[in-house]
Amino acid sequence: MDENVPLVIPEVNPEAMAHVKLGSGKGALIANPNCSTIICLMAVTPLHRRAKVKRMVVSTYQAASGAGAAAMEELVQQTREVLEGKEPTCNIFNQQYAFNLFSHNAPIQLNGYNEEEMKLVKETRKIWNDKDVKVTATCIRVPVMRAHAESVNLQFENPLDENTARDILKNAPGIVVVDDRASNRFPTPLEVSNKDDVAVGRVRRDVSQDGDYGLDIFVCGDQIRKGAALNAVQIAEMLL
Amino acid sequence: MDENVPLVIPEVNPEAMAHVKLGSGKGALIANPNCSTIICLMAVTPLHRRAKVKRMVVSTYQAASGAGAAAMEELVQQTREVLEGKEPTCNIFNQQYAFNLFSHNAPIQLNGYNEEEMKLVKETRKIWNDKDVKVTATCIRVPVMRAHAESVNLQFENPLDENTARDILKNAPGIVVVDDRASNRFPTPLEVSNKDDVAVGRVRRDVSQDGDYGLDIFVCGDQIRKGAALNAVQIAEMLL
Repeated sequence: MDENVPLVIPEVNPEAMAHVKLGSGKGALIANPNCSTIICLMAVTPLHRRAKVKRMVVSTYQAASGAGAAAMEELVQQTREVLEGKEPTCNIFNQQYAFNLFSHNAPIQLNGYNEEEMKLVKETRKIWNDKDVKVTATCIRVPVMRAHAESVNLQFENPLDENTARDILKNAPGIVVVDDRASNRFPTPLEVSNKDDVAVGRVRRDVSQDGDYGLDIFVCGDQIRKGAALNAVQIAEMLL
Repeated sequence: MDENVPLVIPEVNPEAMAHVKLGSGKGALIANPNCSTIICLMAVTPLHRRAKVKRMVVSTYQAASGAGAAAMEELVQQTREVLEGKEPTCNIFNQQYAFNLFSHNAPIQLNGYNEEEMKLVKETRKIWNDKDVKVTATCIRVPVMRAHAESVNLQFENPLDENTARDILKNAPGIVVVDDRASNRFPTPLEVSNKDDVAVGRVRRDVSQDGDYGLDIFVCGDQIRKGAALNAVQIAEMLL
């Protein structure tokens, strides 16, 4: 765990509010954000500070644990049933989860986004205190037990090459860079499970953008650790 | 199956070549493309014809079947082992696949993209005969047995609202639209498994772009059916 992060983890309270002073000097009351948002922003905020994110396209790979212990148990039960050739039991989710994936089960809003996706859009603006940042997201539930993954495409206002980005991430609190191209070793949900740090890898210049104005990254974080109390402190640190 | 698609499926041959005449009147030899590319382009090409795609950001959720029958067997074996509390057997892949996900195992190129991702970039240009179309992709292997899923973000040159896009997709050959917001029913790999059609849903205006110049969609297709012979015929149809 990074030395900047306090070792004492307070009780988990998703509704915890942190009263923080923004960089601009304005005070703001920040709700402890959604777990997909905080895992994404733990990695992207240090890059945003350097090069200013104009637009971000996020696709999530979300674990059963995000829906609670009963959802994790249902994934185990369904997997056993499918392996035995039985019909899977669907209590928590309305369809087979074992060896399958589906659009996040949060309610769909009038604009066609589900609530999980709109949290990524709205909370990014709030946390960065930047109403102009453009974000879109597609949130998908995958048959992973614990820890979320996210594919993040970034467009910057100022140039940021991939080596500088990797160095920034290596020095960022709460981040571990796992980006070994030679051995094809990158972040996985399993490796971050039960850990505080968010893992970042696949850091590369986006070939769909000119020059050094775009990056693709892949992040994994254990939202049970990251998604609640711990991050409230780290958000405050990022904003101060 | 759409009536435009021949009912006789020739033998699967991933190297099959289709000699087709392009819309411009130029002849071209087109290699039967990569399975992620064809599943994506089955859905996107009808939209591209209407509104011209400028840039596309793809994140994949790829099944075990893409790596062959032995990979599917390894996923089953690993899953049984993990459920029994044993160490998973890793022969095909170099890490745990059961209840986990990882960056696609194709070799990484000098630019940091793996070969699977660069096929999406290069083959899209080739199939559309458009060297200017900008594509980026992140390819991830998920613990799904069969059929790939893809989250696709689109930027268009001309406006295309989501209702028109949905109508275009409903009338496109080889496509089935599964987009029921009220019941949260969208495409899943399980539902397209062993089917020829590519399922498309989550069709919505991209809130990160102004006006009707952007869409997000989610597609699923069984690459064992779609990834080889059948699509060679459909590519030829799309280009004629």
